[in-house]
Amino acid sequence: MDLSQKYNIKSRIWISTEQGTFLGEGRIELLKKIDEMGSMSRAAKEMKMSYKKAWGLVTSMNLHFPEPLVVGTTGGVNGGGSILSDSGKRLVEIFTRLNEENKIYLQTELEKLNLLG
Amino acid sequence: MDLSQKYNIKSRIWISTEQGTFLGEGRIELLKKIDEMGSMSRAAKEMKMSYKKAWGLVTSMNLHFPEPLVVGTTGGVNGGGSILSDSGKRLVEIFTRLNEENKIYLQTELEKLNLLG
Repeated sequence: MDLSQKYNIKSRIWISTEQGTFLGEGRIELLKKIDEMGSMSRAAKEMKMSYKKAWGLVTSMNLHFPEPLVVGTTGGVNGGGSILSDSGKRLVEIFTRLNEENKIYLQTELEKLNLLG
Repeated sequence: MDLSQKYNIKSRIWISTEQGTFLGEGRIELLKKIDEMGSMSRAAKEMKMSYKKAWGLVTSMNLHFPEPLVVGTTGGVNGGGSILSDSGKRLVEIFTRLNEENKIYLQTELEKLNLLG
């Protein structure tokens, strides 16, 4: 084995309440896609997820927060769609930053340790 | 929704090399069980895992490190078994501490944020 090989650290985080998962990487990805596409069904399709599954995840997120993270729009050329509320946008930013900062923290901690002893 | 409900953060970490996963929570659990039972087959049974699966995980861990993490013993009333090497014990301690410290770090960071805005 090559002793100089580098050890890396990977991580996943989830924010939850007693009622279960509120936000995780998959849910944040879905929110980002909804923001990008302006439509829950198009976001679901992009993520190769059923509309029912996406709807269930959005409903779960909305129930874990005092304000909905995803709201419907009406009218327009496409006859309405879904967009992120200000809270939805804020939570995407917070989760993404927390996740990135955690990855940096972990890699720094790992590099302080001498795994090879 | 109850605004006073508490948000918690959960996490999982994995240490890997370019060759794939080296250590994760399941692998560490297996090492701890081997240390406790003195036997790979009994550890696998305790974890409701096939011996083949446990053997594969131990082989993978041993290949990711200059010294084996699990070594065989010979003789004794049970005709030999498996124990952790000093490196194996050290890595279980390092991973466990890193994981615990990370959970504290994340919960502290989450509590600094005001998710509710």
